[in-house]
Amino acid sequence: MSLSEIILGRPLASTEESKEELTVLTGVPVLGLDALASTGYGPEAALIVLLPLGVVGLRYFPFIVIAIVVKLATLYLSYRQTQAAYPNGGGAYVVAKDNLGVRAGLWAAIALLLDYLLNVAVGIAAGIGVVVSAIPALQPHTLTLCLTVLATLTILNLRGVRESGLAFVAPVFAFVACIGITIAIGLIRAWFGGGPAPIVPPPPIPMATQEASAWVLLSAFANGCTAMTGIEAVSNGVPLFREPKVRNAQRTLGVIAGILGLFLLGLAYLCPAYGIVAMDERQPGYQSILSQLVAAVTGRGAFYYVALASIFVVLTYSAQTSFADFPRVCRLLAEDRFLPSAFAKRGRRLVFTHGIVALSLLSGLLLVVFGGITDSLIPLFAVGAFSAFLVSQVGMVVHWLRQGGRAVRISLACNALGAATTAVALAIIVTAKFLEGAWITVIVAPALFHLLRRIRAHYDRIEREIEQPLPFEARPRQPPVVIIPIEGLNRVAEKALEFAVLLSNEITAVHISIENDDKQRLRELWTENVEKPARAANVPVPRLVIIDSPYRRVYEPIVDYVKRTKEEKPDRLIAVVIPELANPRWYEALLHNVYGAGLKTMLYVRTGERTVVIYVPWYLREP
Amino acid sequence: MSLSEIILGRPLASTEESKEELTVLTGVPVLGLDALASTGYGPEAALIVLLPLGVVGLRYFPFIVIAIVVKLATLYLSYRQTQAAYPNGGGAYVVAKDNLGVRAGLWAAIALLLDYLLNVAVGIAAGIGVVVSAIPALQPHTLTLCLTVLATLTILNLRGVRESGLAFVAPVFAFVACIGITIAIGLIRAWFGGGPAPIVPPPPIPMATQEASAWVLLSAFANGCTAMTGIEAVSNGVPLFREPKVRNAQRTLGVIAGILGLFLLGLAYLCPAYGIVAMDERQPGYQSILSQLVAAVTGRGAFYYVALASIFVVLTYSAQTSFADFPRVCRLLAEDRFLPSAFAKRGRRLVFTHGIVALSLLSGLLLVVFGGITDSLIPLFAVGAFSAFLVSQVGMVVHWLRQGGRAVRISLACNALGAATTAVALAIIVTAKFLEGAWITVIVAPALFHLLRRIRAHYDRIEREIEQPLPFEARPRQPPVVIIPIEGLNRVAEKALEFAVLLSNEITAVHISIENDDKQRLRELWTENVEKPARAANVPVPRLVIIDSPYRRVYEPIVDYVKRTKEEKPDRLIAVVIPELANPRWYEALLHNVYGAGLKTMLYVRTGERTVVIYVPWYLREP
Repeated sequence: MSLSEIILGRPLASTEESKEELTVLTGVPVLGLDALASTGYGPEAALIVLLPLGVVGLRYFPFIVIAIVVKLATLYLSYRQTQAAYPNGGGAYVVAKDNLGVRAGLWAAIALLLDYLLNVAVGIAAGIGVVVSAIPALQPHTLTLCLTVLATLTILNLRGVRESGLAFVAPVFAFVACIGITIAIGLIRAWFGGGPAPIVPPPPIPMATQEASAWVLLSAFANGCTAMTGIEAVSNGVPLFREPKVRNAQRTLGVIAGILGLFLLGLAYLCPAYGIVAMDERQPGYQSILSQLVAAVTGRGAFYYVALASIFVVLTYSAQTSFADFPRVCRLLAEDRFLPSAFAKRGRRLVFTHGIVALSLLSGLLLVVFGGITDSLIPLFAVGAFSAFLVSQVGMVVHWLRQGGRAVRISLACNALGAATTAVALAIIVTAKFLEGAWITVIVAPALFHLLRRIRAHYDRIEREIEQPLPFEARPRQPPVVIIPIEGLNRVAEKALEFAVLLSNEITAVHISIENDDKQRLRELWTENVEKPARAANVPVPRLVIIDSPYRRVYEPIVDYVKRTKEEKPDRLIAVVIPELANPRWYEALLHNVYGAGLKTMLYVRTGERTVVIYVPWYLREP
Repeated sequence: MSLSEIILGRPLASTEESKEELTVLTGVPVLGLDALASTGYGPEAALIVLLPLGVVGLRYFPFIVIAIVVKLATLYLSYRQTQAAYPNGGGAYVVAKDNLGVRAGLWAAIALLLDYLLNVAVGIAAGIGVVVSAIPALQPHTLTLCLTVLATLTILNLRGVRESGLAFVAPVFAFVACIGITIAIGLIRAWFGGGPAPIVPPPPIPMATQEASAWVLLSAFANGCTAMTGIEAVSNGVPLFREPKVRNAQRTLGVIAGILGLFLLGLAYLCPAYGIVAMDERQPGYQSILSQLVAAVTGRGAFYYVALASIFVVLTYSAQTSFADFPRVCRLLAEDRFLPSAFAKRGRRLVFTHGIVALSLLSGLLLVVFGGITDSLIPLFAVGAFSAFLVSQVGMVVHWLRQGGRAVRISLACNALGAATTAVALAIIVTAKFLEGAWITVIVAPALFHLLRRIRAHYDRIEREIEQPLPFEARPRQPPVVIIPIEGLNRVAEKALEFAVLLSNEITAVHISIENDDKQRLRELWTENVEKPARAANVPVPRLVIIDSPYRRVYEPIVDYVKRTKEEKPDRLIAVVIPELANPRWYEALLHNVYGAGLKTMLYVRTGERTVVIYVPWYLREP
């Protein structure tokens, strides 16, 4: 059993696939995971913006949450229509491409890629935020812990995770139950327990250092919008449901949006009631607001740790969903030739290895650059997610407009409302968060757009050029002119020479002479061992050319010689035969063959057509 | 002008070399730089060990310095003899190889490599220690500064630094003058100014936390021995001197050892007198002892900054000397085939590029691992330097013993004394500093010894096998069997096929079928475009073989097919013709050709002899 098999599992054949169908009950955890997990960072992201307002900020918090929940409602109505219109799955890429054309589809795909990428980084960072809330001693190791979780997810996904509903059901239900119970107890104690009195008091509310302003409130709204991320997942998942698919999917979306809305409103009431404010994740003693809330309402008993464990697991799982979706979008792009075809190929475990590795590297980079701090990643995340929402809903508006008629008026209105409010929210996010990271998305997205279009143009050009094979030409052709770069006349060179004889009558060995090199001896060896036997056998005599290289360059003189030969023989192929030592052990290769690979690249780039490169290996016998 | 020319300068021809001769006046700065710079870290390294003894430690300091100066005197006497015996340069490698054989030479070379390597790391770290003493705000950036200096030195050396005496003269003289003036003023103020009274008082001497013990004193001696590093440089530099070479070289050595001894004794008196103790380089507010001393004696005026600048420059220059010596030792090793021959080749600027890059990477690694803290690097440095001293002096003892006679008795005695005291010092260093880093050298040196011998054995074996060319065999041979792995029948594959026809009558195209691949269409294309024209022209028909790959592997089925073909045709060469897209732009290559290079490696490793790999490029036309 090889090391890769132990880590990655045995290879799976292409036929080993299975599938199962979702009900509302399993659909909520499987497709709602991502949206529900957003409770773990969205409200906190809004609260942290309000922090400089001190106690005044807490008073504004409910109004901001209400604005967010209203936006959530418009998204719910809007995506219901998408589900109905796209029973085979209405991801942003498909909807945008269908209705707005290939370019819009590409924008949607880029928005999705950024969304999924940030979802991994934010999910892991927020999950570790929960862990360091529960175990403060781990706080200095935030980044290390983030990267460990990322590495674990990467390996699991390279092994291939069965997206079984069952695996998600228990933790998501535990999470919903824990948050639900906490909110319920919190409300009961606040209303019937003689007013809210925290069992474990949260840290004191800092003094206000800033006045409330429209800017701060918009900024808090922008951050808080990340609480809605993931809500679109169900629109893409209709085909996974049991019949009646659309009906079940719509119900599931309703349940998810409902739970999320209730959670947000619960937090909007309880945080001010119990005096809970956000804390700086970079400072020692950091507590996420969910950690503070659970501790304030129920104390730091067993329930506290169970609740925080469920929050951690759900946040980590929500990162996991990106590992399923990111490679799928890459695959769609690769199938449309916007990405190298490797992204459309499944690896040894039937997963899209390239997409998983790309996602892992990029999100690892994000975590390192932003130090594993959730708050720093939020602006980028919000831009990516809302861009995807926007493209998808505009696509739906066009969809209904094209369809026309009275029957679609309500659907059209829902999607138009969704698109319009999303556009407003996105404008707020980009404006309010531009300096805090949104600018990165504003630069990266167009750059990616350009890159993907360039890749597509390149593949298109190649296809035009190389497809439509011509009939095979069987007429005889002239043999190539052979050039053999040699270091000296040894058995490695001899083997190359012997192969060259099979190929041509015109053979030239080229030796590049650097510094104090015994040219005379090489000439004598050549005369003795090559020229004389060839004359004796009456076959064409291979020539030896020695070129001095005063600047100690090796490639250039060879390439120049090949170029000159090409010009002298305008109608012939030039075969460059490179003698190589082939070593049975890979590390011994480090001691030789340093020139071979580079020479081929240079010949390709500098000499152009009519050059063929041949490697003739000479094998060392075992010692 | 290309980017590499701007950074590295124009290429130099092999003939563009010049030379100049040294006098005692220029010899002291050029060859003594390294030894004199050791004042910048040696005494401090001893003092830091005495720190836990508090004020008691300072009282022991002069005795430790006296022991070090005595050891320095024996080294001076010993190396005088080496200079006389090796007027053409008596580096440790040459002396050990001459007198003790190749194995001892190899040990000497390894000790030298480690010595030079650590000299770079310690020189830079101590230099930056001086910078952060003068500008405390830079202290958190110690490692970054160290790496910046290292990068600068690397680029300068890749450009090629003329080792002109003149470049070294001014800074070394400035350094000697500054330290000399400081010591003189310090003594005058202590003796005639009514007792030592620091102008800028050094930090208070910490309370003793430990009792004086033989162990602590030996440990301080071991650390302090680094003050002698670099003293051997003159023994290697005799041929650089003006006639009478030996005489001039010996005088230079005397002057260098004399200045160094006086400096050490001066510090031994002044540090206790002014109450100067070492400080922890990791703590904020760190001051090197030279910085404390200059400030205590002259205040923090212009002289302070001039003096510290000269110390910084000399320490950095001392790292620079390793950049000249390390590649030279690598070259000697490469010429004896203990290292790949690339280390013996001069790059575009007539410098040994590979040696410089290796030194830079390894010392960068050391700086990163030890955080740019001088104190942590000292134990490794002491072991490397004293090992080189020991091998060289033992070699000299054998040299005189072989020569025999009365005339050499004094020389023999000097070298024997040097060798014996060095052996004692080395034993103290390894014992006292084993846990603090000496163990690294104790592990690395034998590992390197083994590695270099393995490399030599490998090259020897290859030479035995490949040299002595056989006479060229002109008898006709059978053409190879050709196998062409193809992705489909497109123009790229066609070009490969056309080349294959030149080579052989037995041609098989192999297509690896993965997942939903249109095999039927490929077969039809083949029949239409290849088989029919070939039959019509009455030439042998190339075959098409399609192999299913259920595990989506690409390499393995091709390699297996080549292996089977080899077994079926035991007396034939197998030519694998790989069709490639050759792109005019390098970055476009990232979108193709991902399989070609790996396939060749795998064919070499897994199919063994009789396999030749041919790349036939197909060029994209410009858009």
